[in-house]
Amino acid sequence: VGEARRPDTTFWAESGSVLGERLTLDREESRHLLRVHRAHPGTPFEAVDGHGNTYHCVLESAEDGNAVGHVERREVDRGELGFTVHLLVGLPDPAAAETVVAHAVPLGVSALDFAVCERSGRHELGDARLERLGRLARSGVKQSRRSRLPAIRSSRSLSAAVADLPSGKRFAADPSGGLLRDEVGKVEELDVILAVGPPGGFSDPELDLLRSHQFSLISLGPSRLTSETAAIALLASYRNLVLPKSLRAI
Amino acid sequence: VGEARRPDTTFWAESGSVLGERLTLDREESRHLLRVHRAHPGTPFEAVDGHGNTYHCVLESAEDGNAVGHVERREVDRGELGFTVHLLVGLPDPAAAETVVAHAVPLGVSALDFAVCERSGRHELGDARLERLGRLARSGVKQSRRSRLPAIRSSRSLSAAVADLPSGKRFAADPSGGLLRDEVGKVEELDVILAVGPPGGFSDPELDLLRSHQFSLISLGPSRLTSETAAIALLASYRNLVLPKSLRAI
Repeated sequence: VGEARRPDTTFWAESGSVLGERLTLDREESRHLLRVHRAHPGTPFEAVDGHGNTYHCVLESAEDGNAVGHVERREVDRGELGFTVHLLVGLPDPAAAETVVAHAVPLGVSALDFAVCERSGRHELGDARLERLGRLARSGVKQSRRSRLPAIRSSRSLSAAVADLPSGKRFAADPSGGLLRDEVGKVEELDVILAVGPPGGFSDPELDLLRSHQFSLISLGPSRLTSETAAIALLASYRNLVLPKSLRAI
Repeated sequence: VGEARRPDTTFWAESGSVLGERLTLDREESRHLLRVHRAHPGTPFEAVDGHGNTYHCVLESAEDGNAVGHVERREVDRGELGFTVHLLVGLPDPAAAETVVAHAVPLGVSALDFAVCERSGRHELGDARLERLGRLARSGVKQSRRSRLPAIRSSRSLSAAVADLPSGKRFAADPSGGLLRDEVGKVEELDVILAVGPPGGFSDPELDLLRSHQFSLISLGPSRLTSETAAIALLASYRNLVLPKSLRAI
């Protein structure tokens, strides 16, 4: 309570918004800080740029509704896992894709690809859908106090998706698979590519394709999961399994 | 394709619907089997009763829109984890509670308690809400090919919730905690009680209460998670960690 109360909200710093020790919020974020949180010069606030930077600021001026802060301190990779997680999801319906984004972003995903699979029964996501998912992702970064905005795309096919993967161990969810725990135990590298099928699962040719691209198949347990539950469960399980290694490394 | 094609759907067998080798679906489920799936005598189908039984049937008659099947085989605990998971969630808003049910049921939860916590800012769920969540849970059991319907309740306070817990190791999510992996490693018992706070987290007195009731505090990682994401992540992570032990036991 009082002048210096910090809003329990992270604001968004667009690229180019930081010049020297000055950070300027855009109109919408300024309005949110000044109107909703009733900040005035002297109020501390923080902003992330989606590229790993968190700026701890104090509001300097609020002229014409533009919030300008003085950057007291810059923090790098706050809330980040310290390794990359590329999540490949067989394209489900739009609501399911939003569910994946809403949970996977706070759980630390680095990149999300909603890839058209044989059983997707729909075309890849268009620009409007991707923009909507991007806004959801930005909101998830702010709420979860992460600092990196995941990239979201929608590949036209599974083969296109696996032709362009970053480095990392590769796991795909399939009822025929082994246990993630056993597979992860063998791995020193923490960067990972996780794949789950579309509703109905991967087809046999798709499973062959994944195996030929060095994916290990992983069973998520005895019940049948939707694509979105499987994606969240696989991500949460992997994150939990390797967190000790990652924390030790700090 | 053809006469004997089995619908890729599990039907619901109300208690009392099985007499000897005959299973009678209720009006709604009958309509679904006969109209939507166009079943006729000879079509195989399966039904679960929510108490662990899956009935593999062949449709015998469809008079007056009532589907009656001949039970060929009864399967026990199909899709079940083999241990109990009691999930205690600090009461969030109704949409978040529905999200928890939608994901936690396929992931094998046995019981769910949306308990009013200091920061819940709302009263416990009433009968109408609980009924709605119960319908969602039933749908989740059918879709995930589980066979036991989780119990759902809403305790008036955290102290009421922890005063009435089943046996099992106890873990509560809190940023101050240790790693689930390390804690679970020490445990032979698989039955578990998992707790996550309401939006805003558990208060300090609530954390004291949980500790005094033998809850170990668990960190879910470096980012801030909503109650629903935390609940799903904790459940998925625990399930994944102990699945090997559980599968070995079979």
